[in-house]
Amino acid sequence: MTDFCGAVDVGGTKIASALFTREGEISAGKKVAIDNAGGDAAASQVRDEIAALAEAARRAGGRLAAVGVCVPGIVYSASGKVWAPNIPGWDQYPLLKKIGGLSPQRAVPLVLESDRSAYVAGEAWKGAAAGARDAVFLAVGTGIGAGIISGGRILHGHEDIAGAVGWFGLDPDFKPEYASMGCFEAEASGNSVARKARERLAKGRPSAMLDLAGGVIEAVTAEIVAAAARRQDPPAMEVVADVVTYLAMGIANIVSILNPEVVVLGGGLFQAADLFLEPVRREFKRWTQPLAARSVRIEPSALGEDAGLYGCGRLAWRTLEAES
Amino acid sequence: MTDFCGAVDVGGTKIASALFTREGEISAGKKVAIDNAGGDAAASQVRDEIAALAEAARRAGGRLAAVGVCVPGIVYSASGKVWAPNIPGWDQYPLLKKIGGLSPQRAVPLVLESDRSAYVAGEAWKGAAAGARDAVFLAVGTGIGAGIISGGRILHGHEDIAGAVGWFGLDPDFKPEYASMGCFEAEASGNSVARKARERLAKGRPSAMLDLAGGVIEAVTAEIVAAAARRQDPPAMEVVADVVTYLAMGIANIVSILNPEVVVLGGGLFQAADLFLEPVRREFKRWTQPLAARSVRIEPSALGEDAGLYGCGRLAWRTLEAES
Repeated sequence: MTDFCGAVDVGGTKIASALFTREGEISAGKKVAIDNAGGDAAASQVRDEIAALAEAARRAGGRLAAVGVCVPGIVYSASGKVWAPNIPGWDQYPLLKKIGGLSPQRAVPLVLESDRSAYVAGEAWKGAAAGARDAVFLAVGTGIGAGIISGGRILHGHEDIAGAVGWFGLDPDFKPEYASMGCFEAEASGNSVARKARERLAKGRPSAMLDLAGGVIEAVTAEIVAAAARRQDPPAMEVVADVVTYLAMGIANIVSILNPEVVVLGGGLFQAADLFLEPVRREFKRWTQPLAARSVRIEPSALGEDAGLYGCGRLAWRTLEAES
Repeated sequence: MTDFCGAVDVGGTKIASALFTREGEISAGKKVAIDNAGGDAAASQVRDEIAALAEAARRAGGRLAAVGVCVPGIVYSASGKVWAPNIPGWDQYPLLKKIGGLSPQRAVPLVLESDRSAYVAGEAWKGAAAGARDAVFLAVGTGIGAGIISGGRILHGHEDIAGAVGWFGLDPDFKPEYASMGCFEAEASGNSVARKARERLAKGRPSAMLDLAGGVIEAVTAEIVAAAARRQDPPAMEVVADVVTYLAMGIANIVSILNPEVVVLGGGLFQAADLFLEPVRREFKRWTQPLAARSVRIEPSALGEDAGLYGCGRLAWRTLEAES
């Protein structure tokens, strides 16, 4: 009988699931919209997806040996409770108990992780960090956070909130917006790109960004900034250069303290690879411990939106290896 | 027969050694000056100290069960080679082989670590971080570096140079001195305190620091800056405030990425606790992920110059526990 591990990636709007063989072959991939009610309704969906994976494993002539589940927020490892700000009612919510307590008759080992830990586990299994025992996944989208593997193990910290690098202090000139989200996130997230552009436009600077936004400053997005920068629009290029500096510093700080083999960059911002990825690769070195800078690779995510699924699959297999 | 573990802390000028019981009782403490020739002569001294510890253990009615050795630099864990810039010839020097190959007839398990990893291991055993599974030792003296324990294990990184936090980028305005030592070290080490004061004096600013230095700008030290700041000397107070900001940011970045239970502050700078420790404890929070800031303790080293010895003793005992 073939063993499969199940993976359930719970996002803010959808739940993705799949089966994985020990070798990392994916099958039975599926996505469903998450119940807007959140709470027990969303947990019930997770339970249903696990049951569906068990059924899919049986149909494939095997069995579901373990399941990995990741959530968009914090997983408190001691209690199995979660905090996921985009899912109503998931605040100190006992997710592990809810999905474990009502699983099919035959109990299946369950592992619960934060999404960013799943991303780095996935990339270190079958993605841009494949085989690495020291790897970091840096997600730069609307926010900034990191998943960390060090010496082959996921790093959780004392209270399961390690990787909050959006809070990196990178500029001693403290600005009011740092207080709510942290300096790095305020200076280099996708939202900050748009905000910095709008600030420049509000000062009356002429820019192609305004035309692209239909003349409405508030309609300027990170995508519009990128498009204008590619047309050599000076204010847009300034914004990009400014953000690149902070990204380079943030990545440098990760590399100097952790000495990883690879840093995988994910999230929306790095889809503009020409504007952000290549300049960051050049600039991070001046800010980094030189030996650590020389040996680290800076790579875009290879798994994209499947990184979490692969990570859940990997973590489920790891659970079995640790038990045997 | 009582088991003892030996500890040998190799510094730039001296070699300290001691025996430890499993409970952390220290005995047979001893210090010798290190041979200026470095190389094999220094390695031979380490070997002699290990032999002396074995003899001391026998005299106490026991035996030497394992030995921990730390060196002031990098230990390459795969090869047992070391890089210690203050010891001549210890550049890719095969220290583990040299001291293991010529040990007393009965081979004793040997563990080799960097000094900063030993410091954090010592403080997490019997010092300011006693019992913590997530702890950081931040040394701020002539340079800046960190030893890290995460999830109960020392964090080494891909090439054994994790903890190079002196390279943290904390100010986007890149200054020439950052290129050789890193931004954090250039802005907040003991040497930088003196340099910042001298720069102010060179601009002709009146200051009590000049009197304390006998009128010679080059004679201003960090100690003189501290003495003048305590007398409310404005340029000295500016230097202290400036350094406190960077220290707060650097500690904040460590706390946000690692989520430790405790950060232990060591090195010369924090001996001026009134000027640096208390202000840093107040200021780091605004730069730190709020949940991580709330739960972390910021403590001065409890073991002082014995931290490395305790760490070596702890690591030796850990080796035995891992084997049994």
